[in-house]
Amino acid sequence: MAKPTLNQDELNTALAELEGWELSGDGKSISKKFKFSNFVNAFGFMTKMAIVAEKMNHHPEWFNVYNRVEVTLTTHDSGGITELDAKLAARMNKAAA
Amino acid sequence: MAKPTLNQDELNTALAELEGWELSGDGKSISKKFKFSNFVNAFGFMTKMAIVAEKMNHHPEWFNVYNRVEVTLTTHDSGGITELDAKLAARMNKAAA
Repeated sequence: MAKPTLNQDELNTALAELEGWELSGDGKSISKKFKFSNFVNAFGFMTKMAIVAEKMNHHPEWFNVYNRVEVTLTTHDSGGITELDAKLAARMNKAAA
Repeated sequence: MAKPTLNQDELNTALAELEGWELSGDGKSISKKFKFSNFVNAFGFMTKMAIVAEKMNHHPEWFNVYNRVEVTLTTHDSGGITELDAKLAARMNKAAA
């Protein structure tokens, strides 16, 4: 069964704790632009997160060029943002710190 | 020194050999959409290519969501498509085959 989407209060609370993540215009996804010192560090971050994402069975949309990684998170099955997105976003912040 | 960009003949020859790669509208990059059976295979492809790209010191622009990987190649220093792009594109086709 699809996870319920976060309500406005839950979303505000989640975003307040997720440094650097922004809500999309349609309110259905969150995104962040990460910057690293070089490609190896950017792709190293992606590799860590790929393993986490696969274990969660919740995958990011992401774009990489050289030292930049732009991530968008949404829960397609639920049509919006769920606790899975907040959890993966928090893991990404921790890994990039 | 920046690599010279491919001339029209060289570019046509390269594209004829690069199955699935398309020239961008401005003629300054080539791109291809790869599709895999699942995320692990898509990201496995990216991991192989990340190591190749780092060794070549020539990095892709790429977008991934689940089993799809969309790649754009250009040589920024040269302002267009060079033999580095053709070489990396060929390596990607081989890895995805």
